[in-house]
Amino acid sequence: MASDFRLKEKLPTLVSSIVGTYTADDRINHLGHCPLPKYDSVVAIVEDLTDILYPGFRRREGLHIGNVTYHVGNLIDSLHDSLTTQIGRALHHDDRVHNRSSDCENQLDYEAKGQAIAIRFLEQIPRLRRLLATDVEAAYDGDPAVSSRDEIIFCYPGLEAITIYRIAHELRRLGVPFIPRMMTEWGHKQTGIDLHPGAQVGEYFFIDHGTGVVIGETCEIGSNVKIYQGVTLGAISFPTDPDGQLIRGQKRHPTIEDRVVIYANATILGGRTVVGHDSVVGSSVWITSAVAPHTTVTLEKPNLRVRGGVPDDLKPETNYQI
Amino acid sequence: MASDFRLKEKLPTLVSSIVGTYTADDRINHLGHCPLPKYDSVVAIVEDLTDILYPGFRRREGLHIGNVTYHVGNLIDSLHDSLTTQIGRALHHDDRVHNRSSDCENQLDYEAKGQAIAIRFLEQIPRLRRLLATDVEAAYDGDPAVSSRDEIIFCYPGLEAITIYRIAHELRRLGVPFIPRMMTEWGHKQTGIDLHPGAQVGEYFFIDHGTGVVIGETCEIGSNVKIYQGVTLGAISFPTDPDGQLIRGQKRHPTIEDRVVIYANATILGGRTVVGHDSVVGSSVWITSAVAPHTTVTLEKPNLRVRGGVPDDLKPETNYQI
Amino acid sequence: MASDFRLKEKLPTLVSSIVGTYTADDRINHLGHCPLPKYDSVVAIVEDLTDILYPGFRRREGLHIGNVTYHVGNLIDSLHDSLTTQIGRALHHDDRVHNRSSDCENQLDYEAKGQAIAIRFLEQIPRLRRLLATDVEAAYDGDPAVSSRDEIIFCYPGLEAITIYRIAHELRRLGVPFIPRMMTEWGHKQTGIDLHPGAQVGEYFFIDHGTGVVIGETCEIGSNVKIYQGVTLGAISFPTDPDGQLIRGQKRHPTIEDRVVIYANATILGGRTVVGHDSVVGSSVWITSAVAPHTTVTLEKPNLRVRGGVPDDLKPETNYQI
Amino acid sequence: MASDFRLKEKLPTLVSSIVGTYTADDRINHLGHCPLPKYDSVVAIVEDLTDILYPGFRRREGLHIGNVTYHVGNLIDSLHDSLTTQIGRALHHDDRVHNRSSDCENQLDYEAKGQAIAIRFLEQIPRLRRLLATDVEAAYDGDPAVSSRDEIIFCYPGLEAITIYRIAHELRRLGVPFIPRMMTEWGHKQTGIDLHPGAQVGEYFFIDHGTGVVIGETCEIGSNVKIYQGVTLGAISFPTDPDGQLIRGQKRHPTIEDRVVIYANATILGGRTVVGHDSVVGSSVWITSAVAPHTTVTLEKPNLRVRGGVPDDLKPETNYQI
Amino acid sequence: MASDFRLKEKLPTLVSSIVGTYTADDRINHLGHCPLPKYDSVVAIVEDLTDILYPGFRRREGLHIGNVTYHVGNLIDSLHDSLTTQIGRALHHDDRVHNRSSDCENQLDYEAKGQAIAIRFLEQIPRLRRLLATDVEAAYDGDPAVSSRDEIIFCYPGLEAITIYRIAHELRRLGVPFIPRMMTEWGHKQTGIDLHPGAQVGEYFFIDHGTGVVIGETCEIGSNVKIYQGVTLGAISFPTDPDGQLIRGQKRHPTIEDRVVIYANATILGGRTVVGHDSVVGSSVWITSAVAPHTTVTLEKPNLRVRGGVPDDLKPETNYQI
Amino acid sequence: MASDFRLKEKLPTLVSSIVGTYTADDRINHLGHCPLPKYDSVVAIVEDLTDILYPGFRRREGLHIGNVTYHVGNLIDSLHDSLTTQIGRALHHDDRVHNRSSDCENQLDYEAKGQAIAIRFLEQIPRLRRLLATDVEAAYDGDPAVSSRDEIIFCYPGLEAITIYRIAHELRRLGVPFIPRMMTEWGHKQTGIDLHPGAQVGEYFFIDHGTGVVIGETCEIGSNVKIYQGVTLGAISFPTDPDGQLIRGQKRHPTIEDRVVIYANATILGGRTVVGHDSVVGSSVWITSAVAPHTTVTLEKPNLRVRGGVPDDLKPETNYQI
Repeated sequence: MASDFRLKEKLPTLVSSIVGTYTADDRINHLGHCPLPKYDSVVAIVEDLTDILYPGFRRREGLHIGNVTYHVGNLIDSLHDSLTTQIGRALHHDDRVHNRSSDCENQLDYEAKGQAIAIRFLEQIPRLRRLLATDVEAAYDGDPAVSSRDEIIFCYPGLEAITIYRIAHELRRLGVPFIPRMMTEWGHKQTGIDLHPGAQVGEYFFIDHGTGVVIGETCEIGSNVKIYQGVTLGAISFPTDPDGQLIRGQKRHPTIEDRVVIYANATILGGRTVVGHDSVVGSSVWITSAVAPHTTVTLEKPNLRVRGGVPDDLKPETNYQI
Repeated sequence: MASDFRLKEKLPTLVSSIVGTYTADDRINHLGHCPLPKYDSVVAIVEDLTDILYPGFRRREGLHIGNVTYHVGNLIDSLHDSLTTQIGRALHHDDRVHNRSSDCENQLDYEAKGQAIAIRFLEQIPRLRRLLATDVEAAYDGDPAVSSRDEIIFCYPGLEAITIYRIAHELRRLGVPFIPRMMTEWGHKQTGIDLHPGAQVGEYFFIDHGTGVVIGETCEIGSNVKIYQGVTLGAISFPTDPDGQLIRGQKRHPTIEDRVVIYANATILGGRTVVGHDSVVGSSVWITSAVAPHTTVTLEKPNLRVRGGVPDDLKPETNYQI
Repeated sequence: MASDFRLKEKLPTLVSSIVGTYTADDRINHLGHCPLPKYDSVVAIVEDLTDILYPGFRRREGLHIGNVTYHVGNLIDSLHDSLTTQIGRALHHDDRVHNRSSDCENQLDYEAKGQAIAIRFLEQIPRLRRLLATDVEAAYDGDPAVSSRDEIIFCYPGLEAITIYRIAHELRRLGVPFIPRMMTEWGHKQTGIDLHPGAQVGEYFFIDHGTGVVIGETCEIGSNVKIYQGVTLGAISFPTDPDGQLIRGQKRHPTIEDRVVIYANATILGGRTVVGHDSVVGSSVWITSAVAPHTTVTLEKPNLRVRGGVPDDLKPETNYQI
Repeated sequence: MASDFRLKEKLPTLVSSIVGTYTADDRINHLGHCPLPKYDSVVAIVEDLTDILYPGFRRREGLHIGNVTYHVGNLIDSLHDSLTTQIGRALHHDDRVHNRSSDCENQLDYEAKGQAIAIRFLEQIPRLRRLLATDVEAAYDGDPAVSSRDEIIFCYPGLEAITIYRIAHELRRLGVPFIPRMMTEWGHKQTGIDLHPGAQVGEYFFIDHGTGVVIGETCEIGSNVKIYQGVTLGAISFPTDPDGQLIRGQKRHPTIEDRVVIYANATILGGRTVVGHDSVVGSSVWITSAVAPHTTVTLEKPNLRVRGGVPDDLKPETNYQI
Repeated sequence: MASDFRLKEKLPTLVSSIVGTYTADDRINHLGHCPLPKYDSVVAIVEDLTDILYPGFRRREGLHIGNVTYHVGNLIDSLHDSLTTQIGRALHHDDRVHNRSSDCENQLDYEAKGQAIAIRFLEQIPRLRRLLATDVEAAYDGDPAVSSRDEIIFCYPGLEAITIYRIAHELRRLGVPFIPRMMTEWGHKQTGIDLHPGAQVGEYFFIDHGTGVVIGETCEIGSNVKIYQGVTLGAISFPTDPDGQLIRGQKRHPTIEDRVVIYANATILGGRTVVGHDSVVGSSVWITSAVAPHTTVTLEKPNLRVRGGVPDDLKPETNYQI
Repeated sequence: MASDFRLKEKLPTLVSSIVGTYTADDRINHLGHCPLPKYDSVVAIVEDLTDILYPGFRRREGLHIGNVTYHVGNLIDSLHDSLTTQIGRALHHDDRVHNRSSDCENQLDYEAKGQAIAIRFLEQIPRLRRLLATDVEAAYDGDPAVSSRDEIIFCYPGLEAITIYRIAHELRRLGVPFIPRMMTEWGHKQTGIDLHPGAQVGEYFFIDHGTGVVIGETCEIGSNVKIYQGVTLGAISFPTDPDGQLIRGQKRHPTIEDRVVIYANATILGGRTVVGHDSVVGSSVWITSAVAPHTTVTLEKPNLRVRGGVPDDLKPETNYQI
């Protein structure tokens, strides 16, 4: 190391100037004694649940009917504990954020509430498995390139995003704040699919490829719906009250009815926009108003400039780039 | 922990109800004694191969001509073993899925087949390096912002996706099921680029930025092709036989000839769609029919609504969102 | 293992044929004694800095005013060392690439330069925190679905990408080659947002959802700008000199003035394209020329083919796919 | 690094000269394709068994009647596999060493034998627990300084050595070669107590402190025996046949009957030496012949040189040392 | 794996038979909801404290006056937490063992007590450092083979054992049950030196080599004492009351006054045995009664059988062994 | 956590009082910028060397003639680097301790010296292997209970200690300070055998059981010597000069000639004590003067007090203990 030691011994000044910015006014530190939900624990919960939902696929080899109970039992046991702790923290944090709680009292009461929710959640696993089995079937039926259901469970990002969404949606339904969004944002990072835990999604849901898909908080999606990469189901705007405050709780994302297919990069916006059942939305279409059932919406033959030669400024040998 | 211990001792009931759903009819568990390819091992294979293809870049520092043989020798030795095992499993799994094998017999025969393929694959590494060197050159020539080839190898997602694709494509060509797709889906997760192992891609291939690119199974791509982020080379539909079964093996994704450039978010669909050599497809263009060689296709000057003011419902101070 | 041992003992031939391709002409190996910046160390630097910028959120629980100095002090101490080493390597590498240095001399001089820059960089942390606090506020004000600033810091990919960008941009400003791009490509991998370290971005910047966003090297972005997923701020082309060499240093990406909102999948191209302040660019719009201040640009009511029924080749029960 | 790179590139010569010593005559390498038992796996087996024998003490917290089955079930499941593999390897290795097997054939047959023994061994766990419970009682009754049985299980090296011995002895009884000795030598390393797996030890056995205790292969030890640190139960010599070959299978270590106490550093040698029941052997005593029951053997008042002053060469301020 | 799957599916029976032995009568399980001190945490506490006592030696390189506060501050912060938890558990466990507490109530009260003791203990660190500095000096003065104090701190087992003892003794003095013994037994495992936390040891204490040293609970050792390997400072016996119960609290191990040297393998027994100051006890001497100050005690010239030749049964070529 | 947060925020006072003791006078800290050899690296060097000396035994499975060069080559390559660094540090440290160097200058010169020694050391590996092969033979011939040489290499503590000693002795012979002692003390910790790196030991050396063996710095041991557990080859005293300074370099430990056997717990002291060749020293014998060749020395029939009954104070049912 050729660095100058005397310079290094001045680091304390640097540290003081940084720590001096961690003031009470500073809104981007979390100092104090009230724990937030822990990101790594939330991710671990998702991974453990995935191992229970699809036993034998990823982490643990050699599961069979003679040992699967032990494996699942161990996971449920530790999930009970980690869900209890993390949900307790999230409930507490939510009350503090909304000034329903003074700082850091009654952590134990929150853990007790956390445990009650954790158990109700774990009781939903058989139901979640039935639901996810329909999603696997939808992918199997919808993608002829796939050779077995195992391949879908193993490596389809669409199923990964849906699995995380269904876990997160269930927790949100049970009143857990904060954690469902942490889960779906982790799923977003893994798959490029941003599927909000507040959305309502029917059975037999299939997302193919998926990168860039955004599905907003108040979307309602029927059963047997297929969505391709780059599709946005978004909001246009939403109203504020006379004080300029957002009026919450309003539906601002579209409704997609049963058996709709939405091809790549289509954009459907607005809380009053309903795409009727058995419709097809073509690739790159942009929609902000209702589509009747049994309708096909595609781009018109596009108005392209087609020239019999490449203009100078678009020649491939020129160094184009972004 | 403030949780109620009595509640916790009821967990066995919960476990039983979950394990009870792991029945023979349940298609989303993998219980039994026939191992699947292991995801983590497949990822490790890709990483080890990358270390051999581009020695000295990522994992291992201080490689020089006096020690590189030892490093590569060790990697090849362990790759031989892991490829043998994982390919054996994939072959066996594929036969079971297609009912060509009774359950769990002859695992050793499959390993012998796996070894033969593993060795044939490893013999292709020099050829793969020559091919990938052309891809690095294409990026170097195509992106003036890059200061050295090292930067491309180090951190360009396009090259990462192409590297994984070329590995996976070679394995698929040698008859390995299941694993090539696991590899490219892992690449998809890393880069946002979904490049199917079945596609055929010529030399000097360059993908810039790359997020959202989808390249389908039966694409044929010439040499010296450049593709930007968000480009889809997809299918429209494909025929079923009178029984409603998919007619497999048909080409359903486009052909891109030599020296074509496709700008961001363009969509090219259909198995009979050929983009002729030396053509340019502009940003956001949507194409479903053939483009002659030496053609430029761009969006017409878009029909936009341009107003001299922001309407109330689109004002930035309003809380727009999706 | 059923593999044939005799086959395995032939691996040395294979290894030799691979190592034989690592020649001086071969541009995709890095053999020799001059270290490159280490990818894992660069990622660790980003993670340590994030822990200092937003103390108490992710890695370390239980920080309070009584112990935060120790935590930050330890991080600054090790960041000083790792930044010194990695910047020294990057400076040295850059000189070799541009033939300003013979091979592998004076590594110690480079480390001394690295240390000087490292300290100047660490001195910027308080300023970076003030800037990032505005980005958090922008997200808080811009997304009514968020319940607290903590949620933004914890799991918003937009803020993650901006944080990495601001770190990388600062290093680039201080003359560090290579590393800033490694950082933002890592951020790209994490978030799907490709935000070049050379871009200039004002305060209160908000990217929502973010997957597929590409912001080029010479973009200039004002303050209070909002960008949604899939937006490209790219180049059209740029000039070469009479020898066909790129003319570097020219602005080739657009300028976005203060308080502009750009909705999902919009594409804005060209170095002379300025989007005036207080403008709104609608979803999926494609722009290559200037937009006056206070302007709204949206897609015209799209020309769609809407049919009262789904044609045979688009029926959902048909197996459409890409 | 100031080392000379040219020197470093000469390392291959060094490597060749070393590898050149790994010849067939060289008896201290293990090259080839027949695996030995793996040391780390054998240690892991001991640790997993310890977790089953004394559940709730060391590795896993929070075991209760509602989850202990899952924990033990998982351990038994993986122990079945690892014992099967390691015992199979040990059986195979033993046959090769004694020329009862050609090289590397029939590994699968050995695994089948390994499995049969593994299951018979696991069936002994309830019996082992009853036996070890007597050893814990012996320590509790024999050491008044202990405050609870938990303390003994947690940190008494004597119990640790006895536990490992009882596991290893059981495997040896079932015909497993090689592994029992690996286990007790690991115990030796942990505790300083060298207790051969061939020894026969009754119930209620207690070793206090233990460092330096050596108990030979053909020792027979009754029940309720106590042994202190530094005690050797060893051989004097043993006969060879006319060819100078050892006559194996003869008893060459002493017999210690029930309720004997042997104090620190006593040495008892010889296969015909019997210490009768209810006897006491004092500290540092050296015995090579039989001791009748109910006998006390202590050192005579030692013949010491006691001088009223410290001679010059033994003064503490002189620097004595070994 | 050649094992028989049908055998494996019978493992549940095995598991049940084992779990069936974990009854309430079974004294060698710890099931329930009251945690014991955790072995790994106790070891980690010792290691963290060692890092504070001798900063810069083992774990953390590059400490200097500019960063040592951060390093120590972090360690103290986490030691506060881990000591609080582990001491709380030990206090609770002790009360349960002695029936002063019903099961599992008031864990929080115990943690509060644990915190108070933890802080009192941490306040003793400067005093412990002064004391240990004398032990280092004693080793430096007592062993001429040593070339620097650093060598002693780095690798002398005697100092390691004394350091652990002084930590453990301090905790015991503050009323912590259970943990001090866990610590010294861990030290015993590391060094072969069994130094009871209850012993009282003066400053400038030196143990050389150390393997096999045993120092009992009620020993009193003055200052400037040197002890060599294999020395036992033990008990002979101790009285029981008329009911056969041990009379606790009596001194049953010897007193060693200032400036005494005890050479290798000497044995000194009994609570009334005092070795007077400035005395020397020779190698292998066995003592059960008082030694006056300034006395030298050595073995008499031993009565050996010396024969001019090796008898047949002791010839080295015969296979002697234990 | 029930601990009082206010107490915790007082920790900085505690930290300051501790850091305040790290003064220049304080001899038990190592603050500053001159690195010591790193303990973990030294241990890793021993482990890597062991893997080269006995290839195929412990860490790496599946070595065969086709891959062993890669494995050894990698290890030699990294050993070159770590030995260079650690030897350089040790040389530098030694010069500072003996005031032959000002603080922290010329680290690079020391590394260059370190590299030269590292290479000379690595060149000795073939010779070390020949020597160690004789030690394995000695154990095989000397212990009839062993079933194969593999067992000795795998788990005999005597061979482990000798291996570490022979490595350390070679480094010491090449002039490396500090590190050899770190190595043998690590071996001491592993095996209970304290074998000083300065001792000179001939070929075919065998230590059985080994716990408590101490062999001093100036011992000379011939070939074909066998030593059992608890044997001390130590010093009596050694002279000081008129100033009370130790006269260094004098021989103060015994000489053991060829083919001597020393049984358990024997003690042989003094630099002029020579045990002549082909002699046998019996168990527990204590010797401070020369023994002629071909001599047997055993304890006389011990003078024991043997009583026909156990006195009250030695009855086993009484709670004897140390």
